[in-house]
Amino acid sequence: MGDPTAPPVSELAAATLKDSVPPSAKSLMDSFTDRVLVRTILSRPGGGADLAGLRVPICGLVQTGRVQGKGAFAFLEVNDGSCAADLQVMVEATVADLSTLVPTGTCVHVVGMLKVPPKLGAKQKVELHVEEVLHVGALADPAKYPLPNTNHPKKKPTPEYLRDWTHLRPRIKEFAAVIRIRDELGEATRKFFREEHGFVHVDTGIITTSDCEGAGKMFQVTTLLRKDEKQEKELPLAASPAPAKIDYSKDFFGQAAYLSVSGQLHLETLACAGHKVFTVGPTFRAEQSHTSRHLAEFRMVEAEIPNADLEQDMKCAEAYVKYMCQWLLDKCHDDMQLMAEHDKGCIARLKLVASTPFIRLSYTEAVQLLEDAVKHGKKKFEKKVEWGIDLASEHERYLTEVIFQKPVIVYNYPKGIKAFYMRLNDDSKTVAAMDVLVPKVGELIGGSQREERYEVLQQRMLEMGLPLEPYEKYLDLRRYGTMKHAGFGLGFERMVLFSTGIDNIRDVIPFPRYPGRADL
Amino acid sequence: MGDPTAPPVSELAAATLKDSVPPSAKSLMDSFTDRVLVRTILSRPGGGADLAGLRVPICGLVQTGRVQGKGAFAFLEVNDGSCAADLQVMVEATVADLSTLVPTGTCVHVVGMLKVPPKLGAKQKVELHVEEVLHVGALADPAKYPLPNTNHPKKKPTPEYLRDWTHLRPRIKEFAAVIRIRDELGEATRKFFREEHGFVHVDTGIITTSDCEGAGKMFQVTTLLRKDEKQEKELPLAASPAPAKIDYSKDFFGQAAYLSVSGQLHLETLACAGHKVFTVGPTFRAEQSHTSRHLAEFRMVEAEIPNADLEQDMKCAEAYVKYMCQWLLDKCHDDMQLMAEHDKGCIARLKLVASTPFIRLSYTEAVQLLEDAVKHGKKKFEKKVEWGIDLASEHERYLTEVIFQKPVIVYNYPKGIKAFYMRLNDDSKTVAAMDVLVPKVGELIGGSQREERYEVLQQRMLEMGLPLEPYEKYLDLRRYGTMKHAGFGLGFERMVLFSTGIDNIRDVIPFPRYPGRADL
Repeated sequence: MGDPTAPPVSELAAATLKDSVPPSAKSLMDSFTDRVLVRTILSRPGGGADLAGLRVPICGLVQTGRVQGKGAFAFLEVNDGSCAADLQVMVEATVADLSTLVPTGTCVHVVGMLKVPPKLGAKQKVELHVEEVLHVGALADPAKYPLPNTNHPKKKPTPEYLRDWTHLRPRIKEFAAVIRIRDELGEATRKFFREEHGFVHVDTGIITTSDCEGAGKMFQVTTLLRKDEKQEKELPLAASPAPAKIDYSKDFFGQAAYLSVSGQLHLETLACAGHKVFTVGPTFRAEQSHTSRHLAEFRMVEAEIPNADLEQDMKCAEAYVKYMCQWLLDKCHDDMQLMAEHDKGCIARLKLVASTPFIRLSYTEAVQLLEDAVKHGKKKFEKKVEWGIDLASEHERYLTEVIFQKPVIVYNYPKGIKAFYMRLNDDSKTVAAMDVLVPKVGELIGGSQREERYEVLQQRMLEMGLPLEPYEKYLDLRRYGTMKHAGFGLGFERMVLFSTGIDNIRDVIPFPRYPGRADL
Repeated sequence: MGDPTAPPVSELAAATLKDSVPPSAKSLMDSFTDRVLVRTILSRPGGGADLAGLRVPICGLVQTGRVQGKGAFAFLEVNDGSCAADLQVMVEATVADLSTLVPTGTCVHVVGMLKVPPKLGAKQKVELHVEEVLHVGALADPAKYPLPNTNHPKKKPTPEYLRDWTHLRPRIKEFAAVIRIRDELGEATRKFFREEHGFVHVDTGIITTSDCEGAGKMFQVTTLLRKDEKQEKELPLAASPAPAKIDYSKDFFGQAAYLSVSGQLHLETLACAGHKVFTVGPTFRAEQSHTSRHLAEFRMVEAEIPNADLEQDMKCAEAYVKYMCQWLLDKCHDDMQLMAEHDKGCIARLKLVASTPFIRLSYTEAVQLLEDAVKHGKKKFEKKVEWGIDLASEHERYLTEVIFQKPVIVYNYPKGIKAFYMRLNDDSKTVAAMDVLVPKVGELIGGSQREERYEVLQQRMLEMGLPLEPYEKYLDLRRYGTMKHAGFGLGFERMVLFSTGIDNIRDVIPFPRYPGRADL
């Protein structure tokens, strides 16, 4: 078996395979590992058939395996995480104990010869004929393996089931594809901001003592609690005033501390020094949201642009979303094809968004359109539409999915429903805020021009009954050399939902955190 | 003043300057803002002199300003955050009230003509003569501005002082350079892992319920505490067993939750499915460390390599550090020059690390060398050196700074001082762990090959008195299709310290968190 002029297989099994495989195979080796990636083989023009005759090591997990020819040989579909496709691997019974190799989930590290399959018209243009088995990671008990038959269309585990197995979920092909798509969206984000537009990436603080008027309920971070001791005695309580309060001067940061709900304030300190900045922070909400679109821990891409107004903010947000869509079309063909098996429209959706100018609509115009739809009997909403309301998800989705069937940017919202820091428009009724709405998920981006006028900002805060003292540093940015600036935040997991067509946000993040669950 | 054939300046002040400035200036405009970046001008070959005659808008903060010519004009040094250099800006008294423009910290948005300075041999090859002032962000009270005279070498604020002004610190030139260097190190990280070596970036979980044998004391994350209410009544206490414990089934995640000290476990779940992965997570330590090298919140770059052993892990770590050093030499010339004003050796250090193979030394050899140094009277250590001790910072720095004067990788540590998950070597005394030590900071990277053998791992855990139950998922990775794998973590702020030569780790992160402080 094998080419007699090739070096003996035992040499290939030496500690560093890279140094011993023939040069042509060596050049294909995955860096820092003892394998050639399945992607490297199958992504070649011609599907890898040009590599026939090469001896290569591969390492991955068996997706399905079957013994054939009355026990003479076995076929394994092996996935190594590098791409959606499996490599077909043939092992003869003379080479290894086939029964330990075939269970789904087995890890195999093998060296073999790449050959063109004898069957004409085979799906794969090349398969591996094993010459030596370097390692088998067998299943302790195949009957107990939580993810059997993952390639069997009728026995595929449900997303709900897989959430109980987050430590094994990356072995599922569809989930691995989502991980790669996430990764590419992250790369597109950096390319767009850094390379295309000169933004600097900044790490904002995750733990914060700014207990400001925020976007949501906050998690508290503390070292005061002790899991296994008598707790009441442990909590330092200030003697007065009654009722007793916890004395946070004894806590780690000398005061109550929280997990950040947004990096905006931090980014503003940089933008107000002229820096174009962005961050991809983990952000947190301690709300009891049991929906398919909320997580307790998620990633938000936030950008802050010095010397910019709302118009430029909207331009930047639109360009960013388009860029990500085009990026996936360019870079993730195979993984997007896999997504399209569940959501046929997902690729067309990316194309639409990448190529169509977004609709721009003032809040006032949006409300008018929604009121007209109700008046003409086209649509009933749960929540009544009238000028001044905060648009609900049903309104947003009607605008983007039904009326326009494309992304819509709604801007100039009533000041009463928006945060104090958004810039007051000349009408004194609306603020320079904007939301980007897209089909499938609704609100994807929220942003605004920030109020840079010290007196106006202070006035707005007083109007809203906010105390000034906790915001002194924020006011400092306006007090000393103020600059117009604008920014926005994009819910990164919502972008993954939009791109992949996956239904539940818990399935587009490797380790989802939501009420009652923070596995691992 | 100005070119009579150019369009009237008032047109330049229109909302979107991009559409109205002459085409040649338009092509230089910073995207999504109303300015040309100072970097765009000064980084041109010839220092921007070729742009003389162009009318451009700029926007930034005055570093120093002085009125001259008996009040006829003022010179402003303006920095816009895009580079370390300021642009010299000249304003005549006929154009604006000079007294509001000159205070340090004032924001100016101006349109002017670029001209070659009349003075021969001037430091800058081009300066801006203002034609119209679009906006002035004046200082409410210049005397109260916390950062006056930042360009004055003798009046420069100290790093300690600046830590009290994290919201204004990005205006300090040296700090802005550190932010840009951080950004470039982050980019080098992604380029190295993703583009050069095919790793996938993964978001690991920040909040975790894994209360495992960890790298350090953990912060707790909770929604049980209430700042402003009577606390004892609020904490749900389980009735039994006595003494009363907090009932964490009532907490947000249904059990006690913490901030992650490492993404390793999460990355291992992916590596064990074949994925080459890395993350740049915020990680947390709730230790009362008041040193210049510890933070409560920091970034750790962690990589996990499937199908790899310790040798490949070390290769990857060395290649990564070298890559970052070369990247800074290639991309950050001006900012590194600024760093060299305080630490003359910083550029030479980058060159050394980028070009010299790292020393590889077993722990046993390292201890021998240190013992020899003591025996021969070359060095006294606070902590006695003998086989079996955990090397202290003084030992590590002696190895890398005195004995070898270059980076050193120490590997194969005694199992007694290392974590349970590190792979047991054949000698049964040492584990396949490694630390990368570099001059100036000591330990920069820690890593290991992970124990992939189920029985050996379980045996190690029992030896160390660890309960198996909380680690069942970790054991599952070995129980079902185990694969050899290895990984490491790099303290990102330590890499910034090493690169910049800055003394205190609190000054290389925009929003430092340490005992008693989490400003903003």
